[in-house]
Amino acid sequence: MRADTGLLSPGWAGTALDDLLDDRAWLSAMIAFEVALARVQAGAGIAPPHAADVIAAAADPDRFDWRRLVADVRETGNPVVGFVAQLTALVRAVDPEAADHVHLGSTSQDVLDTATMLVCRAVLRRVRDDLRRTAAALAGHARAHRDTVMAGRTLTQHAVPITFGLKVSGWLSGVLDAVDRVERVLDGGLPVSLGGAAGTLAAYREFGAGGGLGLVGPLAAELGLAAADVPWHSTRTPVVDVAAVLAFTSGALGRIAVDVAVLTRTEIGEVAEGAAPGRGASSAMPQKRNPVRATAITAVARQVPALVSVLHQCAVVEDERSAGGWHAEWQPLREALRSVGGAARNAADLAAGLVVFPERMRANAALTGGAIVSERLAVALVPIVGKAEAKALLTAATSATGDLPDVLAGMLRERGHDGDRDRWRALCDPAGYLGAAGELVDRVLERHERLSPA
Amino acid sequence: MRADTGLLSPGWAGTALDDLLDDRAWLSAMIAFEVALARVQAGAGIAPPHAADVIAAAADPDRFDWRRLVADVRETGNPVVGFVAQLTALVRAVDPEAADHVHLGSTSQDVLDTATMLVCRAVLRRVRDDLRRTAAALAGHARAHRDTVMAGRTLTQHAVPITFGLKVSGWLSGVLDAVDRVERVLDGGLPVSLGGAAGTLAAYREFGAGGGLGLVGPLAAELGLAAADVPWHSTRTPVVDVAAVLAFTSGALGRIAVDVAVLTRTEIGEVAEGAAPGRGASSAMPQKRNPVRATAITAVARQVPALVSVLHQCAVVEDERSAGGWHAEWQPLREALRSVGGAARNAADLAAGLVVFPERMRANAALTGGAIVSERLAVALVPIVGKAEAKALLTAATSATGDLPDVLAGMLRERGHDGDRDRWRALCDPAGYLGAAGELVDRVLERHERLSPA
Amino acid sequence: MRADTGLLSPGWAGTALDDLLDDRAWLSAMIAFEVALARVQAGAGIAPPHAADVIAAAADPDRFDWRRLVADVRETGNPVVGFVAQLTALVRAVDPEAADHVHLGSTSQDVLDTATMLVCRAVLRRVRDDLRRTAAALAGHARAHRDTVMAGRTLTQHAVPITFGLKVSGWLSGVLDAVDRVERVLDGGLPVSLGGAAGTLAAYREFGAGGGLGLVGPLAAELGLAAADVPWHSTRTPVVDVAAVLAFTSGALGRIAVDVAVLTRTEIGEVAEGAAPGRGASSAMPQKRNPVRATAITAVARQVPALVSVLHQCAVVEDERSAGGWHAEWQPLREALRSVGGAARNAADLAAGLVVFPERMRANAALTGGAIVSERLAVALVPIVGKAEAKALLTAATSATGDLPDVLAGMLRERGHDGDRDRWRALCDPAGYLGAAGELVDRVLERHERLSPA
Amino acid sequence: MRADTGLLSPGWAGTALDDLLDDRAWLSAMIAFEVALARVQAGAGIAPPHAADVIAAAADPDRFDWRRLVADVRETGNPVVGFVAQLTALVRAVDPEAADHVHLGSTSQDVLDTATMLVCRAVLRRVRDDLRRTAAALAGHARAHRDTVMAGRTLTQHAVPITFGLKVSGWLSGVLDAVDRVERVLDGGLPVSLGGAAGTLAAYREFGAGGGLGLVGPLAAELGLAAADVPWHSTRTPVVDVAAVLAFTSGALGRIAVDVAVLTRTEIGEVAEGAAPGRGASSAMPQKRNPVRATAITAVARQVPALVSVLHQCAVVEDERSAGGWHAEWQPLREALRSVGGAARNAADLAAGLVVFPERMRANAALTGGAIVSERLAVALVPIVGKAEAKALLTAATSATGDLPDVLAGMLRERGHDGDRDRWRALCDPAGYLGAAGELVDRVLERHERLSPA
Repeated sequence: MRADTGLLSPGWAGTALDDLLDDRAWLSAMIAFEVALARVQAGAGIAPPHAADVIAAAADPDRFDWRRLVADVRETGNPVVGFVAQLTALVRAVDPEAADHVHLGSTSQDVLDTATMLVCRAVLRRVRDDLRRTAAALAGHARAHRDTVMAGRTLTQHAVPITFGLKVSGWLSGVLDAVDRVERVLDGGLPVSLGGAAGTLAAYREFGAGGGLGLVGPLAAELGLAAADVPWHSTRTPVVDVAAVLAFTSGALGRIAVDVAVLTRTEIGEVAEGAAPGRGASSAMPQKRNPVRATAITAVARQVPALVSVLHQCAVVEDERSAGGWHAEWQPLREALRSVGGAARNAADLAAGLVVFPERMRANAALTGGAIVSERLAVALVPIVGKAEAKALLTAATSATGDLPDVLAGMLRERGHDGDRDRWRALCDPAGYLGAAGELVDRVLERHERLSPA
Repeated sequence: MRADTGLLSPGWAGTALDDLLDDRAWLSAMIAFEVALARVQAGAGIAPPHAADVIAAAADPDRFDWRRLVADVRETGNPVVGFVAQLTALVRAVDPEAADHVHLGSTSQDVLDTATMLVCRAVLRRVRDDLRRTAAALAGHARAHRDTVMAGRTLTQHAVPITFGLKVSGWLSGVLDAVDRVERVLDGGLPVSLGGAAGTLAAYREFGAGGGLGLVGPLAAELGLAAADVPWHSTRTPVVDVAAVLAFTSGALGRIAVDVAVLTRTEIGEVAEGAAPGRGASSAMPQKRNPVRATAITAVARQVPALVSVLHQCAVVEDERSAGGWHAEWQPLREALRSVGGAARNAADLAAGLVVFPERMRANAALTGGAIVSERLAVALVPIVGKAEAKALLTAATSATGDLPDVLAGMLRERGHDGDRDRWRALCDPAGYLGAAGELVDRVLERHERLSPA
Repeated sequence: MRADTGLLSPGWAGTALDDLLDDRAWLSAMIAFEVALARVQAGAGIAPPHAADVIAAAADPDRFDWRRLVADVRETGNPVVGFVAQLTALVRAVDPEAADHVHLGSTSQDVLDTATMLVCRAVLRRVRDDLRRTAAALAGHARAHRDTVMAGRTLTQHAVPITFGLKVSGWLSGVLDAVDRVERVLDGGLPVSLGGAAGTLAAYREFGAGGGLGLVGPLAAELGLAAADVPWHSTRTPVVDVAAVLAFTSGALGRIAVDVAVLTRTEIGEVAEGAAPGRGASSAMPQKRNPVRATAITAVARQVPALVSVLHQCAVVEDERSAGGWHAEWQPLREALRSVGGAARNAADLAAGLVVFPERMRANAALTGGAIVSERLAVALVPIVGKAEAKALLTAATSATGDLPDVLAGMLRERGHDGDRDRWRALCDPAGYLGAAGELVDRVLERHERLSPA
Repeated sequence: MRADTGLLSPGWAGTALDDLLDDRAWLSAMIAFEVALARVQAGAGIAPPHAADVIAAAADPDRFDWRRLVADVRETGNPVVGFVAQLTALVRAVDPEAADHVHLGSTSQDVLDTATMLVCRAVLRRVRDDLRRTAAALAGHARAHRDTVMAGRTLTQHAVPITFGLKVSGWLSGVLDAVDRVERVLDGGLPVSLGGAAGTLAAYREFGAGGGLGLVGPLAAELGLAAADVPWHSTRTPVVDVAAVLAFTSGALGRIAVDVAVLTRTEIGEVAEGAAPGRGASSAMPQKRNPVRATAITAVARQVPALVSVLHQCAVVEDERSAGGWHAEWQPLREALRSVGGAARNAADLAAGLVVFPERMRANAALTGGAIVSERLAVALVPIVGKAEAKALLTAATSATGDLPDVLAGMLRERGHDGDRDRWRALCDPAGYLGAAGELVDRVLERHERLSPA
C-alpha cells in the first residue's frame, strides 16, 4: 500500500514531515496513549505495575497487519477498534494478564483524540521552530534593507515609495504574530482526552476508587499534555484552536509568497529565490528559474482555509459522539498540519535564501518619472494654488508626456506661479518621501529581538 | 514511505480505491501519456516506430526511485520534471535513441493534466457503476414500500404522513440526477491536455509538419479522451466540471446518509444498516450497532464541499501557468475523488443491506394521536366553522390532553356543531392522507427503469 | 433602496443588529475616523482646533446621497473615495477652511479598516454580553439537572447513561471558551489603522513635525482602539483574529442548537424551546411547534465557516494593497458578524426559555431494557467468565428478546454460574452508572462562577 | 431599514442588480407564486375564477409592513408564514372569499423555493446576456490581436512567446463554456416547487379531483418554470445546479480579471482598463488609475467558491424539511447570484473597454534577449551537439551576460561547430516561435460565431 507520499503535494513534499504525520505516526501516538493509560492505572492500583512496559514492548508498529487495520476502519468507522484488537493480541501473545489491561475502561475517542493532540504538538513545535528561523532571516533582510527604496504598489500600480525593509517588516510582523499564536496553543491548549464512552468516565471509575476523574491529571502529566476541565468529545475547543493557528500561519506565510512571486516577475525582478542545482527547473525551458518555494507556499495558502472550514463545521456535532462530524475531522486536520508544516519549512528556506536586487528596485521606482510622489507634490502645491486646483493640476501633469518636474514647473509658470524646476525635481526623489518607514522597521526589529529566545 | 492508507479516512478506507488513486496510479497515468505521445509522434513520422513500445516496457513504476521523485517535487514544484528525468534514464539504459524521444516537445502540465483526466475517468466510471447499484437497491425499497406509511418530519417534528417509498424515491431521484451528471462528464468532458510550454504547441510543431495541432486528435483517440478546442492550461473547465459532479454526488449521497442516521436513532428505529460480524462494533459497548456506512458517507459529505471550493478557487489562475493555483488543485481533487468514490461504494452497500421496520414506522406515525393529520382536519373544519376559527380550534385541540378525535368532536359539539367521533377518527388515520405519494413513487421508478442499462 | 433586511436570514432577522452593521453603521464609523483624525491633527498643531467639531456637525449620514455613494463604490473600488468627496462638500458648505482638513494626509484603507474595527468592537461587545447571558441560563440548567439521568448517545445509538446536567455542562464549557476568546480580541486585538497610501505614513508626516507616527497613539486613544506596531494594510492579523473568534463562537453555539434539535424530535421529546404566541408556527399545520431558535442558530453555523474561509484567503494579499483581496473581505466579515451576533442573541433566548422533560429522559433511557449499561455489565462479568467470554455473552444477551437482566441471569445459570436476577437488575439501573458526571458538572459551574462578572 | 446597498460590495455595487435580488424582489416572486397558484386552482375548479386577479391587485409590496415581516422571520424561521398572513389580510380587506383561497393547500417551502427559482431565472438571464456581451468583446480583441506577439508567462517567468490573441482566446473559451452551462440550467433546470407540507401534495389534493399532482404542470406553465418529477424539498438538485454554474462563471471571469491585473502592473503595462472620469481614482494619489473592474471581479471570484460550498453543504439535509439546512441556503445563494451578476456586468464592461498596448508587449517579450525561445534553441541545438549537451549549453548561455544569439554562436564556435550569428539571431525572434497560436485563435473564434445568436 503506497498512498500519498507527496507526489501531488508540492506544498509539503520533501519537507520530512512523514515521520510526524503519516498513518504510522498516528499509530505510534495511539500506542503512547495506551501505554500511558496502563501506567497511570498501575499508579492507581488498577493495573499491574508491569503492564505498561509489556504493552510498550509488544506494540511495535511494524507488527501490525495494516491491511486489516484499514479494513477495520471501514467496518467500525474508526481506526481504534481494530487497533485495540490487534494490540491486545500482540500483548496477549507475550503476557495474557497484561492483555486484560489493554485499553481498560477506555473508548475509541479518548485514544484517537489524545493521539491527535500528540501529533499536533509535534508538528506545531516544528512549525514554531521554522517560523522562528523564518523570522530571523526576515529580520536580517529588514535590517540590511532598512533604507532600500522601492516602489510601493497598490492595486498593482505604483503608489508612493517605500523601503524593502518596510515591506519585509510587514512580513515579519505577521510571522511574529503567528509564532505568538502557535505558542499560545502549545502552552496549555492541547489536552489529553479522557471521558469514556459518553464522557462520564464511568468505565474508568468502575475499576476502583482511584479511577475516573483521578486519572486525568496523571495521564496528562505522563504524556505532557494539558488536563481539560471536562471531556471534550463533543466540545471541540482544542481542535478549533489548532485550526485557528494553522489558518493564521497559512495566511501569514502565504502573503509573503505572493509578494515574492510578484517581485520575481521577469519585468520586475527585484528579488529571486535562492538558487540551487535543479531548483526551479523546467522540463523544457533551460532558462527558467521558477520561484518554487513561493509557489509551494502559495499552493498551501490556497488549500488551508478550506480545510480549516471543515474543522469549523466539525465543531457542530450532535450527541455525545457525532455520526460523521467527528470522523470528518481527522483527514482535513492532518492535511492542514502537513500543509502548514511544509509551508513553514519552505518559508524558512525561502527567507534564508532570498536574493535582493536594490538596483532593480531603484530603477523600477523611477519608472513613472516622479509620478510616484504625486501625493507629496499635491501637498506642496496646495499653498501655491489651493487644494482643488492642486489635484487637477497634478492629474493633468501626470497624464502629460515628458519629465514630470519639468512639466509641472512649466504649468506653474504658465499660471503665473514660481516654477522652479530644481525644487520640483528634488521633491520628486522617491528617497525623500519615505515617511516613517525607517522607524517602523526599527520597531518591528525590536519586537523580533524581544521575542527571540536568547 | 507509508503515508495515508486510510487510517484517518473512514469515508474511503477499505473501499479498494488505492489502485485508482494513489501516487502509483498517477505515475502510471503519466507513463500512459508519454507512451501515447511517442506513439502518435511515430504516426506523424517524428519519432521512430518502436519508441513507444520501448518506453512502455522500460517504464515499470516499481523501478522508479520514489524518494528521489518526492524530493524532486519539492525542487521543481511538480512531479513531472523528476519523473521525466527518471523515465528518460530508464529508457536510455535500454535504447538511447528511444530515450531521445521521451517527452519530446512536451511540458509538465500536458503530462500531469492528461494523467489527471485518466485518473478521473477511472474513478468516475466506478462511481457511476456504484451509483447505479445504489439506485437499483433503492428502487427495490421504493417498490416494496410504496405504501408503507410513516411520519413525514419537518424541522424535526411530525408534519403529515408520507410513505417510506416516497422518502426513498426522493433519495433515488437525487442518485439518478447524479448518474446523469457523471455520465455527462464521462461523455466528452475529459479532454487530453496538449499545449506545450505556454499553450501554443510550438515545441510539438518544431519537429515536423505532422506535429503541433495535428497531434491532438490522435493522442486523444489513443488515450480514449476528448480533444479540446484549445489548450486548457489556464482555462480549467474540465477540472471544474469534475468538481461539480463530485460535489453533486457527495450531496446526493450525504442526504441519504443523514436521513438513515436519523431513522436509525434508538428512539426511532425505523431502519437499520445491514448487519455483518464486527460491523458497527464499539470498542467498549457490546450492544452497540453503529450506522457505520451512514457515518462514513456523512463524513465525506462534510468534506467534499470544502475540497471543491479549493478547485473553484484554483480556476482563478494568472498567466499561462499559475504559480500556485495549478499546484493547489492536485491533492484536493484526489481527496475529493477518493472521498466520493468511497461514498458511492458505501452507499451501494448501505442501500443493498438496509433493513426496514414498517411496524416501527406505523407506531411512530401514531405517536401524536392524530395531530399528524391536523392539516387535513383543518380543511375538513373550514366548511363547518370557517377558516380562521378552524385553525384556532385545531391549535387548541392539539394542545389539549386526550385522544384528538374525541377532543375535537367534543369541542365541535360544545360549539353546537355536529361532532361525530367516528368521522373524525376516520379522518385521523395517517394512511388516508397520503396525497399523491404512490403516484410519485411510480414516476421515479419509471424514470429509474428508463435510465437503467438493459 | 431596500436590500437585505433579513427576509432571507432567519439567523439574524429580528435581532436588532441593523444599527450596528448596516451600511449606515459603516458610514457612521467612517465619519468617526475622520472626526478623530481631525481632532488629533489639531492636537498636533496641523489642523485648526475647531475643524473636528465642524466635521462632526456637518457629517449627518442622512445628508449623504446614497445612490451616488454606491455608484462611486463601483467606479473607485471602495466606499471611501466617494464618501470623502461628499463629506468634504458637506463641510465646505459650512466652513471652507475645515473642509481643507478633511481626510488630511489619509488614505482609503486607513478609513475603512479603522471603521471596520469600530464595527467589530460594537458587535463583539454585544456578542460577549449575549454569550454571558447564555452561559448564565445554561448554568441554571446544569445546576437544576445535575443528577437528571438521560441516555448518552453516540453515533445516534444509546451508549451509556449520562445526566442532562453533564450535557449542558459541555455546552456551557464551549460557551465559556467562546467568551474567553471574544474578550481576548476585545482586549487589545482591535487596532486603529494609520499608514497612509502605502504604510509609510508619509502624507501624515508631510504636514509637520507632530505628524506621522506620532499620530497613531493619540488616534487610538481618541477612538478607544489599540495602536499597532506597524500599519496592517497587508498584514491582516486583526481581521484574522476576529474571524477566529467568530468561527469559534459559531461552532460553540451551533453544537448546542443541533443537540437541542435532536432532543426536540417528536420521538425523543426531552426538551422543547420556550413557547410564545406564533413562535415556531407553520403556515399549514396547526399542531407544529418548530424549534425555530435552534434552526436559526444551525443555519448560522452552516454558513460562518465558509465566510471565515474567505477571510482566511483574504489574508493572502500581494503588494501594499491588494487588487481584490482587500475588497473581498468586507462583506463576508459583515455577514459573519451579523450571523454570529444573531446566533448569540438567539442562543441566549433559547437557553433562557429551554423547557426540560426529565420523565421523557428517564423513559428514553429505559428503552433498551438495560443494554445501555452493557459496558458496566461487561466489567461485572469479567471476574465470573473472563474477558473474552464476557463480551460474547453480552452481545448474545443484548441481541436476544426479553428483559436483559433476566436473560443474562438465565444465561449465566445455564453456564453453571451464579445468576442472581436481582443483582443484575440493580446493575442495570442507569442511575447507578453515571461515573463522575456530577463532579464534572460541579467543575464547570465553578469555572462559570469564577468567570462571571460580580 | 437600510441594510446592504452595496457599500461593502464593490463586486456588484452600482450594477443595477437590486431590482432582481433585494428583499422586495423576493417578495414579488412569492406574490407571483400565490397568484399563479390561485390561477391554476381556478382552472381546476378549486378556487373562484377571480381570486387570482384579486390577489394580484391587492399584493402591492409597498403595502406590506416590513418590520413585521422581518420580526416574523425570526419567530417562524422563514419569510413565508408572515408573508401569507399579511397577504391574506390585504386580500381580505378587499374580498373575503378570495382571501380564503390565498395559499390554499400550500406550504412555506413551495412558496419560497419557487420564488427562488424565479429570481434565479431573472439573474441567470442577465448573466447570460452579459457573458455574451463579454464574449463578443473578447472575440473582437482576439481577432484584432491574432498575431500580436507577447511573452507567455509561467510561474511568473517568461516562458515562450504567445500572442495576445491566444491569451484572449483562452479567456473567451472559458466564457463560452460558462454561457453553455448557464443556458443548460435556464433550459429546464429551474422547476416549480409543489409538494405541500411533506412532499405528498396531500393538501393540494384535498380540495378536489383536479388538485394535487395535476396542478404541477399548469403551475409550471403559468410561471414559465419546469415541472419536476417529484417534489424537491429535500432533493436540492435545482439549487446545486445553479450553484455549479455560478461557481463556474465566477472562475471563468475571475481568471480574466487576475490576468488583466497582472498585465496592468506598472512594470508590465500591456493593457489598461477603459478610462472614464473618476474611474479608478485614488483618494490621495492623482496619478493613480486603478484597474477597478478587474479588482471588483477578483473580489467576487474570491468569495463565490465559499458561498457555493455552503450550498453544497445544504444539499445534505435530513427529513422532509431540514431544521437549518434549508434556511442556510437562502442568503449565500442570493449573495452568489448578486456577486456573479455583478461580475458578469463588470466583465462585459472590462472587455469592451480594454485598451491594448502591442508595443509594450513586443518590448517586454524582448526583455530576456532571446532566452524566451530557449526551448526552440534547444531543439535546434540537438542535431549539432546532442540532447544532453544542448540543455547544458543553453543553461550556460542564458545565465551568461550579453546578447544571447552572440553568446550562443560564440560558444558553438569554441566547441568547433558552426556558430552563425545571423541564424541564431533569426531563431531568437519571438514572432517565429508561435506554434499553432493563430490556428487556435481561429478555432475559438469559429466556436464563438457558431454559438452567437444571429
